[in-house]
Amino acid sequence: MNFTPLGKRVLVERDASEETTKTGIFIPDSSRETTQKGTVVAVSDEIDNLKAGDRVEFGKYAGSEMTLDGEKFLIMDINDVLGKLK
Amino acid sequence: MNFTPLGKRVLVERDASEETTKTGIFIPDSSRETTQKGTVVAVSDEIDNLKAGDRVEFGKYAGSEMTLDGEKFLIMDINDVLGKLK
Amino acid sequence: MNFTPLGKRVLVERDASEETTKTGIFIPDSSRETTQKGTVVAVSDEIDNLKAGDRVEFGKYAGSEMTLDGEKFLIMDINDVLGKLK
Amino acid sequence: MNFTPLGKRVLVERDASEETTKTGIFIPDSSRETTQKGTVVAVSDEIDNLKAGDRVEFGKYAGSEMTLDGEKFLIMDINDVLGKLK
Amino acid sequence: MNFTPLGKRVLVERDASEETTKTGIFIPDSSRETTQKGTVVAVSDEIDNLKAGDRVEFGKYAGSEMTLDGEKFLIMDINDVLGKLK
Amino acid sequence: MNFTPLGKRVLVERDASEETTKTGIFIPDSSRETTQKGTVVAVSDEIDNLKAGDRVEFGKYAGSEMTLDGEKFLIMDINDVLGKLK
Amino acid sequence: MNFTPLGKRVLVERDASEETTKTGIFIPDSSRETTQKGTVVAVSDEIDNLKAGDRVEFGKYAGSEMTLDGEKFLIMDINDVLGKLK
Repeated sequence: MNFTPLGKRVLVERDASEETTKTGIFIPDSSRETTQKGTVVAVSDEIDNLKAGDRVEFGKYAGSEMTLDGEKFLIMDINDVLGKLK
Repeated sequence: MNFTPLGKRVLVERDASEETTKTGIFIPDSSRETTQKGTVVAVSDEIDNLKAGDRVEFGKYAGSEMTLDGEKFLIMDINDVLGKLK
Repeated sequence: MNFTPLGKRVLVERDASEETTKTGIFIPDSSRETTQKGTVVAVSDEIDNLKAGDRVEFGKYAGSEMTLDGEKFLIMDINDVLGKLK
Repeated sequence: MNFTPLGKRVLVERDASEETTKTGIFIPDSSRETTQKGTVVAVSDEIDNLKAGDRVEFGKYAGSEMTLDGEKFLIMDINDVLGKLK
Repeated sequence: MNFTPLGKRVLVERDASEETTKTGIFIPDSSRETTQKGTVVAVSDEIDNLKAGDRVEFGKYAGSEMTLDGEKFLIMDINDVLGKLK
Repeated sequence: MNFTPLGKRVLVERDASEETTKTGIFIPDSSRETTQKGTVVAVSDEIDNLKAGDRVEFGKYAGSEMTLDGEKFLIMDINDVLGKLK
Repeated sequence: MNFTPLGKRVLVERDASEETTKTGIFIPDSSRETTQKGTVVAVSDEIDNLKAGDRVEFGKYAGSEMTLDGEKFLIMDINDVLGKLK
């Protein structure tokens, strides 16, 4: 990955969601479910509890969407990562 | 549990509530009662005053709902846990 | 009491108020009086200036109402306790 | 005084105001005057720059009104006390 | 002066303003000028960069107006004093 | 560059965007994409993790636009720089 | 200059702007350009990275306008100074 997050940030690839329709409209599966899953792609030098490849759960509206080599990722603060999936 | 909370967070399984109707509408039993009970399922490495299995009381609107292996849990900040039930 | 508050919190039993009518509507006795009295029932391990049995004055809207064994209590931050009555 | 403030608080007896009419409506004497005078009745153990009997100036809307033995007092944060009168 | 400010506060006597009409309506001389001049009358023990007699510039809406022996003063936080005039 | 940022700031030259029409109206390519790319031109003495020439990703609305020798730049806080592109 | 800023403040003389019309109405040259240039006239004792005479860039709406000996200046927090021009 040709990108290094700065500050206490991680770059995450969001799991493809079955909840997004073909027109791109987001349909939440539950009125209170506000998290989703993804895979860490790159971490800042300031982060030691996550590494590339880790599976994580994070807030559905966390982070900013950015494009690298035509692919979309989410760059987010470590505080927005709720936990690690094993 | 194949999940480890990050930051000062705990994963909680909320007690089945008699206050939720079959249609899923939440009916509060009192205008000021804003807490509910549940069981701790996993805690972050940063938490030492709670462990899996502890019975806890927390704010009714605390945390984010997340799904693991088809089951629903609440991931919340330790500050949202009001106390431990014995 | 089978409950231990977490964080800097205390569990308080509010004095029965003459200001609440039979229908449960709260009637304030003065436009600026915003405090009430109660008795401390349990305190967190982090609190050393209050103990169970202490009579206290606190903000009328402080804390969250919770039910233990069918009785109602208020769980509140120590900062919401204004002082100790002797 | 059978009351000890907790935290950085003081208990103050507000000077009888000539600005309050018999019906209890408050009439400010100036559009920008926002302070009033009173006498300290009790202080928290955490306060060392004020003691019972000190005459003080404080913000007109500072503190919470509370009743002790039928008399009304103001419980306020030390930061709301603007200064000491000699 | 029979008054000692508490906290990081100073007591200031505002310069008589030519901008106030006889009816007491304040007329600003410029849409962006938001400061005015005055003289320090008393300072808290916690302040060492100002003393009584110092001429100061401060925000036009800084502080609270209070009356001592029939005269009006402004009690304000040291942070509201923008600088010292020589 | 005849400019040195103060505080924890960097001066950035934003990449020419294909997303801006000839009339200067900004057209976002995605409803959630909120970042863009640019090149660091100057950094404050307080910054050691970025230098002139570094390629960076930052929030689309980060910073203030300023003009130096007729050219437009963005001056922004280091916290607004999301990461370094390699 | 017969004025010493207090706190972390600087006194700045704003460059005469070509963007202000004779009637004093401010006309911004660009919808996103929000900075302007000026010269430092005096600094607080607490500031060591700027001195009188330094050319600076700052936010267009930073600081408070004040008058000294009939001339207008801006008194602003050091954090509002974006950088030094050489």
